[in-house]
Amino acid sequence: MSDIRVLAFDVFGTVVDWHASIRAEVAQLLPQVDANAFALAWRDGYQPAMDKVNAGTLGWTLIDDLHRMILDEVLRRFGVTTLGEAQIRHLNKAWHRLAPWPDAVQGLTRLKTKFTICTLSNGNLGLLSNMAKHAALPWDCILSAEVFHRYKPDPATYLGVAKIFDLRPEQVMMVAAHHSDLDAARACGLNTAYIERPLEFGSTRTKDVADNGANGYHAKDIEALASMLGV
Amino acid sequence: MSDIRVLAFDVFGTVVDWHASIRAEVAQLLPQVDANAFALAWRDGYQPAMDKVNAGTLGWTLIDDLHRMILDEVLRRFGVTTLGEAQIRHLNKAWHRLAPWPDAVQGLTRLKTKFTICTLSNGNLGLLSNMAKHAALPWDCILSAEVFHRYKPDPATYLGVAKIFDLRPEQVMMVAAHHSDLDAARACGLNTAYIERPLEFGSTRTKDVADNGANGYHAKDIEALASMLGV
Repeated sequence: MSDIRVLAFDVFGTVVDWHASIRAEVAQLLPQVDANAFALAWRDGYQPAMDKVNAGTLGWTLIDDLHRMILDEVLRRFGVTTLGEAQIRHLNKAWHRLAPWPDAVQGLTRLKTKFTICTLSNGNLGLLSNMAKHAALPWDCILSAEVFHRYKPDPATYLGVAKIFDLRPEQVMMVAAHHSDLDAARACGLNTAYIERPLEFGSTRTKDVADNGANGYHAKDIEALASMLGV
Repeated sequence: MSDIRVLAFDVFGTVVDWHASIRAEVAQLLPQVDANAFALAWRDGYQPAMDKVNAGTLGWTLIDDLHRMILDEVLRRFGVTTLGEAQIRHLNKAWHRLAPWPDAVQGLTRLKTKFTICTLSNGNLGLLSNMAKHAALPWDCILSAEVFHRYKPDPATYLGVAKIFDLRPEQVMMVAAHHSDLDAARACGLNTAYIERPLEFGSTRTKDVADNGANGYHAKDIEALASMLGV
Protein backbone atom coordinates (compact mmCIF):
# COMPACT_ATOMS: atom_id res chain seq x y z
CA MET A 1 0.00 0.00 0.00
CA SER A 2 3.06 2.24 -0.06
CA ASP A 3 2.31 3.32 -3.62
CA ILE A 4 -1.09 4.94 -2.96
CA ARG A 5 -1.11 8.37 -4.60
CA VAL A 6 -4.74 9.48 -4.71
CA LEU A 7 -7.41 9.28 -2.03
CA ALA A 8 -10.89 9.45 -3.55
CA PHE A 9 -13.58 10.32 -1.01
CA ASP A 10 -17.22 9.55 -0.92
CA VAL A 11 -18.83 12.75 0.39
CA PHE A 12 -22.43 12.41 1.65
CA GLY A 13 -22.15 10.76 5.06
CA THR A 14 -18.39 10.23 4.82
CA VAL A 15 -17.15 13.84 4.80
CA VAL A 16 -20.32 15.80 5.56
CA ASP A 17 -23.16 15.17 8.02
CA TRP A 18 -26.11 15.33 5.62
CA HIS A 19 -28.63 14.20 8.23
CA ALA A 20 -28.00 16.95 10.78
CA SER A 21 -27.77 19.66 8.12
CA ILE A 22 -30.93 18.65 6.25
CA ARG A 23 -32.84 18.12 9.49
CA ALA A 24 -31.83 21.60 10.71
CA GLU A 25 -32.88 23.34 7.49
CA VAL A 26 -36.19 21.45 7.42
CA ALA A 27 -36.85 22.22 11.09
CA GLN A 28 -36.32 25.90 10.49
CA LEU A 29 -38.38 26.14 7.32
CA LEU A 30 -41.14 23.68 8.26
CA PRO A 31 -41.55 23.62 12.06
CA GLN A 32 -44.78 21.62 11.70
CA VAL A 33 -43.11 18.50 10.23
CA ASP A 34 -40.94 15.78 11.82
CA ALA A 35 -37.61 17.04 10.46
CA ASN A 36 -35.77 13.82 11.30
CA ALA A 37 -38.29 11.69 9.39
CA PHE A 38 -38.34 14.19 6.52
CA ALA A 39 -34.54 14.09 6.17
CA LEU A 40 -34.51 10.29 6.19
CA ALA A 41 -37.34 10.09 3.64
CA TRP A 42 -35.54 12.50 1.32
CA ARG A 43 -32.33 10.51 1.52
CA ASP A 44 -34.18 7.20 1.12
CA GLY A 45 -35.26 8.28 -2.35
CA TYR A 46 -31.66 8.80 -3.44
CA GLN A 47 -30.43 5.29 -4.20
CA PRO A 48 -33.55 4.13 -6.09
CA ALA A 49 -33.38 7.28 -8.24
CA MET A 50 -29.74 6.64 -9.18
CA ASP A 51 -30.48 2.96 -9.79
CA LYS A 52 -33.02 4.03 -12.42
CA VAL A 53 -30.35 6.11 -14.17
CA ASN A 54 -27.77 3.34 -14.10
CA ALA A 55 -30.40 0.85 -15.34
CA GLY A 56 -31.28 3.17 -18.21
CA THR A 57 -34.95 3.57 -17.26
CA LEU A 58 -34.19 7.23 -16.54
CA GLY A 59 -31.81 9.22 -18.76
CA TRP A 60 -28.74 10.94 -17.35
CA THR A 61 -30.02 13.21 -14.58
CA LEU A 62 -27.96 15.32 -12.16
CA ILE A 63 -28.31 14.79 -8.42
CA ASP A 64 -29.74 18.30 -8.02
CA ASP A 65 -32.58 17.25 -10.29
CA LEU A 66 -33.00 13.84 -8.63
CA HIS A 67 -33.09 15.59 -5.25
CA ARG A 68 -35.84 17.86 -6.55
CA MET A 69 -37.93 14.97 -7.90
CA ILE A 70 -37.67 13.22 -4.55
CA LEU A 71 -38.30 16.43 -2.62
CA ASP A 72 -41.53 17.12 -4.49
CA GLU A 73 -42.76 13.64 -3.55
CA VAL A 74 -41.66 13.96 0.09
CA LEU A 75 -43.35 17.36 0.41
CA ARG A 76 -46.58 15.78 -0.82
CA ARG A 77 -46.21 12.85 1.54
CA PHE A 78 -45.65 15.17 4.53
CA GLY A 79 -48.61 17.33 3.50
CA VAL A 80 -46.56 20.48 2.89
CA THR A 81 -48.39 22.88 0.57
CA THR A 82 -47.18 26.23 1.87
CA LEU A 83 -43.87 26.58 0.01
CA GLY A 84 -43.43 28.72 -3.09
CA GLU A 85 -41.16 27.72 -5.97
CA ALA A 86 -38.27 29.90 -4.79
CA GLN A 87 -38.46 28.36 -1.30
CA ILE A 88 -38.51 24.81 -2.70
CA ARG A 89 -35.51 25.57 -4.92
CA HIS A 90 -33.63 27.01 -1.96
CA LEU A 91 -34.48 23.99 0.19
CA ASN A 92 -33.37 21.66 -2.59
CA LYS A 93 -29.95 23.30 -2.49
CA ALA A 94 -29.60 22.49 1.21
CA TRP A 95 -27.43 19.65 -0.12
CA HIS A 96 -24.95 22.33 -1.26
CA ARG A 97 -24.75 23.64 2.30
CA LEU A 98 -24.02 20.47 4.29
CA ALA A 99 -21.72 20.83 7.29
CA PRO A 100 -18.56 18.73 7.55
CA TRP A 101 -18.07 16.18 10.30
CA PRO A 102 -15.88 17.77 13.02
CA ASP A 103 -12.76 15.82 11.96
CA ALA A 104 -13.14 16.33 8.19
CA VAL A 105 -11.41 19.63 7.41
CA GLN A 106 -8.42 18.96 9.64
CA GLY A 107 -8.15 15.34 8.51
CA LEU A 108 -8.28 16.27 4.82
CA THR A 109 -5.77 19.07 5.33
CA ARG A 110 -3.35 16.58 6.86
CA LEU A 111 -3.91 13.98 4.14
CA LYS A 112 -3.43 16.61 1.42
CA THR A 113 0.20 17.05 2.49
CA LYS A 114 1.02 13.52 1.31
CA PHE A 115 -1.70 12.51 -1.16
CA THR A 116 -3.83 14.02 -3.87
CA ILE A 117 -7.27 14.20 -2.30
CA CYS A 118 -10.36 14.28 -4.50
CA THR A 119 -14.04 13.63 -4.27
CA LEU A 120 -15.65 10.68 -6.00
CA SER A 121 -19.27 11.44 -5.27
CA ASN A 122 -22.54 10.98 -7.06
CA GLY A 123 -23.24 14.63 -6.27
CA ASN A 124 -22.96 16.94 -9.27
CA LEU A 125 -19.95 19.21 -9.82
CA GLY A 126 -21.78 22.42 -8.92
CA LEU A 127 -23.14 20.92 -5.73
CA LEU A 128 -19.74 19.59 -4.68
CA SER A 129 -17.99 22.88 -5.52
CA ASN A 130 -20.49 24.98 -3.60
CA MET A 131 -20.27 22.56 -0.68
CA ALA A 132 -16.47 22.66 -0.67
CA LYS A 133 -16.52 26.45 -0.57
CA HIS A 134 -19.21 26.52 2.13
CA ALA A 135 -17.52 23.91 4.30
CA ALA A 136 -13.88 24.81 3.51
CA LEU A 137 -13.08 21.33 2.20
CA PRO A 138 -9.55 21.54 0.72
CA TRP A 139 -9.95 19.20 -2.27
CA ASP A 140 -7.17 19.04 -4.83
CA CYS A 141 -9.78 18.12 -7.41
CA ILE A 142 -13.53 17.62 -7.45
CA LEU A 143 -14.57 14.52 -9.37
CA SER A 144 -18.14 13.40 -9.74
CA ALA A 145 -20.32 10.84 -11.43
CA GLU A 146 -21.17 13.81 -13.66
CA VAL A 147 -17.73 13.51 -15.28
CA PHE A 148 -18.36 9.86 -16.17
CA HIS A 149 -22.12 10.01 -16.78
CA ARG A 150 -22.47 6.91 -14.62
CA TYR A 151 -23.32 6.70 -10.94
CA LYS A 152 -21.36 4.72 -8.38
CA PRO A 153 -21.15 1.77 -8.02
CA ASP A 154 -20.60 1.61 -11.79
CA PRO A 155 -16.97 0.52 -12.40
CA ALA A 156 -16.51 3.40 -14.86
CA THR A 157 -16.44 5.80 -11.91
CA TYR A 158 -13.72 4.05 -9.88
CA LEU A 159 -11.58 3.18 -12.89
CA GLY A 160 -12.18 6.70 -14.18
CA VAL A 161 -10.32 8.21 -11.24
CA ALA A 162 -7.27 6.04 -11.92
CA LYS A 163 -7.41 6.92 -15.60
CA ILE A 164 -7.69 10.68 -14.95
CA PHE A 165 -4.54 10.58 -12.83
CA ASP A 166 -2.76 8.12 -15.16
CA LEU A 167 -2.39 5.61 -12.32
CA ARG A 168 -2.97 1.93 -11.80
CA PRO A 169 -6.20 1.18 -9.87
CA GLU A 170 -4.30 0.09 -6.76
CA GLN A 171 -2.63 3.50 -6.59
CA VAL A 172 -6.05 4.97 -5.80
CA MET A 173 -7.74 4.42 -2.45
CA MET A 174 -11.49 4.87 -2.12
CA VAL A 175 -12.50 6.26 1.28
CA ALA A 176 -16.13 5.86 2.30
CA ALA A 177 -18.53 5.17 5.15
CA HIS A 178 -20.48 2.66 3.04
CA HIS A 179 -19.47 -0.94 2.38
CA SER A 180 -21.32 -1.13 -0.94
CA ASP A 181 -19.17 1.71 -2.28
CA LEU A 182 -15.95 0.15 -1.02
CA ASP A 183 -16.86 -3.33 -2.24
CA ALA A 184 -17.40 -1.98 -5.75
CA ALA A 185 -14.13 -0.01 -5.64
CA ARG A 186 -12.22 -3.08 -4.44
CA ALA A 187 -13.68 -5.16 -7.25
CA CYS A 188 -12.06 -2.65 -9.64
CA GLY A 189 -8.67 -3.08 -7.97
CA LEU A 190 -8.68 0.06 -5.84
CA ASN A 191 -7.46 0.10 -2.25
CA THR A 192 -10.18 0.91 0.27
CA ALA A 193 -10.58 2.61 3.64
CA TYR A 194 -13.75 2.53 5.76
CA ILE A 195 -14.74 5.50 7.92
CA GLU A 196 -17.11 4.88 10.84
CA ARG A 197 -20.05 7.25 10.86
CA PRO A 198 -22.42 5.66 13.40
CA LEU A 199 -24.67 8.74 13.43
CA GLU A 200 -24.95 9.12 9.66
CA PHE A 201 -28.73 8.61 9.87
CA GLY A 202 -29.15 10.48 13.15
CA SER A 203 -29.90 8.86 16.47
CA THR A 204 -33.15 7.12 15.47
CA ARG A 205 -31.73 4.83 12.79
CA THR A 206 -28.75 2.77 13.83
CA LYS A 207 -25.85 1.86 11.57
CA ASP A 208 -23.47 -1.07 12.00
CA VAL A 209 -19.94 0.32 11.75
CA ALA A 210 -18.07 -2.81 12.84
CA ASP A 211 -14.92 -3.74 10.96
CA ASN A 212 -15.92 -6.36 8.37
CA GLY A 213 -12.29 -7.15 7.60
CA ALA A 214 -12.58 -6.40 3.91
CA ASN A 215 -10.77 -3.06 3.74
CA GLY A 216 -7.12 -2.11 3.99
CA TYR A 217 -7.96 0.51 6.58
CA HIS A 218 -10.80 0.88 9.08
CA ALA A 219 -10.78 4.25 10.84
CA LYS A 220 -12.98 5.99 13.37
CA ASP A 221 -12.81 9.20 11.37
CA ILE A 222 -10.67 11.06 8.80
CA GLU A 223 -8.19 12.32 11.39
CA ALA A 224 -7.67 8.72 12.49
CA LEU A 225 -7.10 7.69 8.87
CA ALA A 226 -4.49 10.44 8.53
CA SER A 227 -2.68 9.06 11.57
CA MET A 228 -2.82 5.51 10.17
CA LEU A 229 -1.31 6.80 6.91
CA GLY A 230 1.49 8.55 8.78
CA VAL A 231 0.56 12.18 8.18
CA MET B 1 -21.38 43.24 -13.63
CA SER B 2 -22.33 43.17 -9.96
CA ASP B 3 -23.88 39.73 -10.33
CA ILE B 4 -20.73 37.87 -11.42
CA ARG B 5 -20.40 34.73 -9.29
CA VAL B 6 -17.84 32.51 -11.01
CA LEU B 7 -14.48 33.43 -12.51
CA ALA B 8 -13.37 30.81 -15.04
CA PHE B 9 -9.66 30.99 -15.81
CA ASP B 10 -7.73 29.99 -18.82
CA VAL B 11 -4.55 28.42 -17.43
CA PHE B 12 -1.64 28.03 -19.92
CA GLY B 13 -0.18 31.50 -20.31
CA THR B 14 -2.81 33.21 -18.16
CA VAL B 15 -2.07 31.64 -14.76
CA VAL B 16 1.15 29.75 -15.40
CA ASP B 17 4.26 30.66 -17.37
CA TRP B 18 4.48 27.65 -19.69
CA HIS B 19 7.31 29.10 -21.76
CA ALA B 20 9.81 29.60 -18.93
CA SER B 21 8.96 26.25 -17.31
CA ILE B 22 9.17 24.20 -20.50
CA ARG B 23 12.32 26.00 -21.62
CA ALA B 24 13.99 25.30 -18.27
CA GLU B 25 13.13 21.58 -18.30
CA VAL B 26 14.29 21.23 -21.90
CA ALA B 27 17.52 23.12 -21.19
CA GLN B 28 18.31 20.83 -18.29
CA LEU B 29 17.47 17.59 -20.09
CA LEU B 30 18.77 18.51 -23.57
CA PRO B 31 21.58 21.07 -23.22
CA GLN B 32 22.45 20.61 -26.91
CA VAL B 33 19.16 22.05 -28.24
CA ASP B 34 17.81 25.62 -28.41
CA ALA B 35 15.41 25.34 -25.48
CA ASN B 36 13.55 28.52 -26.37
CA ALA B 37 12.88 27.33 -29.91
CA PHE B 38 11.98 23.86 -28.66
CA ALA B 39 9.41 25.25 -26.21
CA LEU B 40 7.84 27.43 -28.88
CA ALA B 41 7.70 24.58 -31.37
CA TRP B 42 6.04 22.29 -28.85
CA ARG B 43 3.42 24.90 -28.04
CA ASP B 44 2.88 25.75 -31.71
CA GLY B 45 1.61 22.23 -32.27
CA TYR B 46 -1.07 22.64 -29.63
CA GLN B 47 -3.80 24.63 -31.42
CA PRO B 48 -3.68 22.64 -34.70
CA ALA B 49 -3.96 19.40 -32.72
CA MET B 50 -7.06 20.61 -30.85
CA ASP B 51 -8.55 21.95 -34.05
CA LYS B 52 -8.36 18.45 -35.49
CA VAL B 53 -10.31 17.10 -32.51
CA ASN B 54 -12.98 19.81 -32.70
CA ALA B 55 -13.26 19.25 -36.45
CA GLY B 56 -13.74 15.52 -35.92
CA THR B 57 -10.71 14.44 -37.97
CA LEU B 58 -9.15 13.19 -34.73
CA GLY B 59 -11.29 11.47 -32.09
CA TRP B 60 -11.47 12.75 -28.52
CA THR B 61 -7.86 12.90 -27.31
CA LEU B 62 -6.57 14.28 -24.02
CA ILE B 63 -4.03 17.09 -23.98
CA ASP B 64 -1.46 14.77 -22.39
CA ASP B 65 -1.73 12.58 -25.48
CA LEU B 66 -1.75 15.53 -27.89
CA HIS B 67 1.34 16.90 -26.11
CA ARG B 68 3.03 13.54 -26.62
CA MET B 69 2.18 13.35 -30.31
CA ILE B 70 3.60 16.86 -30.81
CA LEU B 71 6.62 16.11 -28.63
CA ASP B 72 7.56 13.05 -30.66
CA GLU B 73 7.51 15.19 -33.81
CA VAL B 74 9.48 18.04 -32.21
CA LEU B 75 12.11 15.64 -30.89
CA ARG B 76 12.56 14.30 -34.43
CA ARG B 77 12.75 17.82 -35.84
CA PHE B 78 15.41 18.84 -33.31
CA GLY B 79 17.36 15.64 -33.97
CA VAL B 80 17.03 14.28 -30.44
CA THR B 81 17.56 10.52 -30.40
CA THR B 82 19.08 10.02 -26.96
CA LEU B 83 15.98 9.88 -24.76
CA GLY B 84 14.46 6.64 -23.50
CA GLU B 85 10.71 6.11 -23.17
CA ALA B 86 10.68 6.92 -19.44
CA GLN B 87 12.53 10.19 -20.06
CA ILE B 88 10.16 11.19 -22.84
CA ARG B 89 7.16 10.44 -20.65
CA HIS B 90 8.65 12.48 -17.83
CA LEU B 91 9.38 15.38 -20.18
CA ASN B 92 5.83 15.21 -21.55
CA LYS B 93 4.53 15.76 -18.05
CA ALA B 94 6.52 19.00 -17.74
CA TRP B 95 3.13 20.57 -18.51
CA HIS B 96 1.97 19.26 -15.10
CA ARG B 97 4.83 21.13 -13.43
CA LEU B 98 4.46 24.64 -14.84
CA ALA B 99 5.26 27.52 -12.50
CA PRO B 100 2.68 30.22 -11.79
CA TRP B 101 3.22 33.83 -12.79
CA PRO B 102 4.42 35.75 -9.70
CA ASP B 103 1.01 37.39 -9.13
CA ALA B 104 -1.12 34.29 -9.67
CA VAL B 105 -1.34 32.57 -6.28
CA GLN B 106 -1.89 35.77 -4.33
CA GLY B 107 -4.32 37.14 -6.90
CA LEU B 108 -6.38 33.94 -6.97
CA THR B 109 -6.39 33.75 -3.19
CA ARG B 110 -7.83 37.26 -3.02
CA LEU B 111 -10.44 36.57 -5.72
CA LYS B 112 -11.48 33.35 -3.99
CA THR B 113 -12.76 35.35 -1.01
CA LYS B 114 -15.52 36.87 -3.15
CA PHE B 115 -15.98 34.58 -6.17
CA THR B 116 -15.94 30.91 -7.02
CA ILE B 117 -12.71 30.49 -8.97
CA CYS B 118 -12.34 27.61 -11.40
CA THR B 119 -10.25 26.61 -14.34
CA LEU B 120 -11.68 26.38 -17.82
CA SER B 121 -8.69 24.99 -19.64
CA ASN B 122 -8.14 22.63 -22.50
CA GLY B 123 -5.67 20.82 -20.24
CA ASN B 124 -6.94 17.49 -18.94
CA LEU B 125 -8.18 17.05 -15.37
CA GLY B 126 -5.15 15.10 -14.19
CA LEU B 127 -2.75 17.65 -15.64
CA LEU B 128 -4.62 20.57 -14.07
CA SER B 129 -4.89 18.81 -10.70
CA ASN B 130 -1.21 17.95 -10.60
CA MET B 131 -0.34 21.49 -11.65
CA ALA B 132 -2.58 23.01 -8.98
CA LYS B 133 -0.91 20.90 -6.32
CA HIS B 134 2.57 21.65 -7.63
CA ALA B 135 1.97 25.41 -7.96
CA ALA B 136 -0.39 25.82 -4.96
CA LEU B 137 -3.20 27.20 -7.10
CA PRO B 138 -6.24 27.49 -4.80
CA TRP B 139 -9.04 26.54 -7.23
CA ASP B 140 -12.52 25.97 -5.90
CA CYS B 141 -13.08 23.57 -8.77
CA ILE B 142 -11.07 22.28 -11.71
CA LEU B 143 -13.04 22.26 -14.95
CA SER B 144 -11.61 21.16 -18.25
CA ALA B 145 -12.51 20.51 -21.84
CA GLU B 146 -12.30 16.89 -20.69
CA VAL B 147 -15.61 17.33 -18.83
CA PHE B 148 -17.35 18.51 -22.01
CA HIS B 149 -15.43 16.44 -24.58
CA ARG B 150 -15.03 19.60 -26.64
CA TYR B 151 -12.08 21.98 -26.73
CA LYS B 152 -12.33 25.74 -26.36
CA PRO B 153 -13.46 27.77 -28.25
CA ASP B 154 -16.43 25.40 -28.65
CA PRO B 155 -19.47 27.11 -27.04
CA ALA B 156 -20.23 23.91 -25.10
CA THR B 157 -17.26 24.66 -22.85
CA TYR B 158 -18.24 28.24 -21.87
CA LEU B 159 -21.94 27.48 -21.54
CA GLY B 160 -21.03 24.31 -19.70
CA VAL B 161 -19.49 26.30 -16.85
CA ALA B 162 -22.68 28.33 -16.41
CA LYS B 163 -24.75 25.15 -16.50
CA ILE B 164 -22.59 23.36 -13.94
CA PHE B 165 -23.06 26.22 -11.49
CA ASP B 166 -26.75 26.70 -12.40
CA LEU B 167 -26.05 30.30 -13.43
CA ARG B 168 -26.88 32.54 -16.36
CA PRO B 169 -23.93 32.99 -18.77
CA GLU B 170 -23.40 36.62 -17.70
CA GLN B 171 -22.87 35.48 -14.11
CA VAL B 172 -19.67 33.78 -15.27
CA MET B 173 -16.58 35.76 -16.26
CA MET B 174 -13.92 34.20 -18.44
CA VAL B 175 -10.42 35.39 -17.56
CA ALA B 176 -7.69 34.83 -20.15
CA ALA B 177 -4.59 36.25 -21.79
CA HIS B 178 -5.91 35.38 -25.26
CA HIS B 179 -8.45 37.40 -27.24
CA SER B 180 -9.69 34.38 -29.21
CA ASP B 181 -10.72 32.70 -25.95
CA LEU B 182 -12.45 35.82 -24.64
CA ASP B 183 -14.18 36.57 -27.95
CA ALA B 184 -15.70 33.08 -27.95
CA ALA B 185 -16.77 33.40 -24.32
CA ARG B 186 -18.37 36.79 -24.96
CA ALA B 187 -20.28 35.37 -27.92
CA CYS B 188 -21.84 32.93 -25.45
CA GLY B 189 -22.92 35.75 -23.15
CA LEU B 190 -20.15 35.47 -20.56
CA ASN B 191 -18.40 38.48 -19.09
CA THR B 192 -14.71 38.68 -19.94
CA ALA B 193 -11.46 39.94 -18.43
CA TYR B 194 -8.15 40.17 -20.28
CA ILE B 195 -4.86 39.61 -18.50
CA GLU B 196 -1.69 41.03 -20.04
CA ARG B 197 1.08 38.48 -20.37
CA PRO B 198 3.57 40.19 -22.69
CA LEU B 199 6.23 37.55 -22.02
CA GLU B 200 3.97 34.54 -22.60
CA PHE B 201 6.17 33.41 -25.51
CA GLY B 202 9.44 34.49 -23.91
CA SER B 203 11.49 37.45 -24.99
CA THR B 204 12.06 36.40 -28.61
CA ARG B 205 8.43 36.39 -29.74
CA THR B 206 6.51 39.56 -28.99
CA LYS B 207 2.84 39.67 -28.05
CA ASP B 208 0.49 42.64 -28.41
CA VAL B 209 -1.23 43.12 -25.08
CA ALA B 210 -2.90 46.47 -25.82
CA ASP B 211 -6.47 46.97 -24.63
CA ASN B 212 -8.72 46.21 -27.62
CA GLY B 213 -11.75 47.64 -25.83
CA ALA B 214 -13.80 44.46 -26.14
CA ASN B 215 -13.62 43.18 -22.57
CA GLY B 216 -15.24 44.31 -19.36
CA TYR B 217 -11.88 44.31 -17.63
CA HIS B 218 -8.32 44.68 -18.88
CA ALA B 219 -5.75 44.01 -16.17
CA LYS B 220 -1.99 43.91 -16.00
CA ASP B 221 -2.12 40.74 -13.95
CA ILE B 222 -4.37 38.74 -11.61
CA GLU B 223 -3.59 40.89 -8.59
CA ALA B 224 -4.63 43.96 -10.60
CA LEU B 225 -7.87 42.19 -11.57
CA ALA B 226 -8.54 41.48 -7.89
CA SER B 227 -8.12 45.17 -7.10
CA MET B 228 -10.47 46.13 -9.96
CA LEU B 229 -13.05 43.72 -8.57
CA GLY B 230 -12.75 45.21 -5.09
CA VAL B 231 -11.10 42.33 -3.28
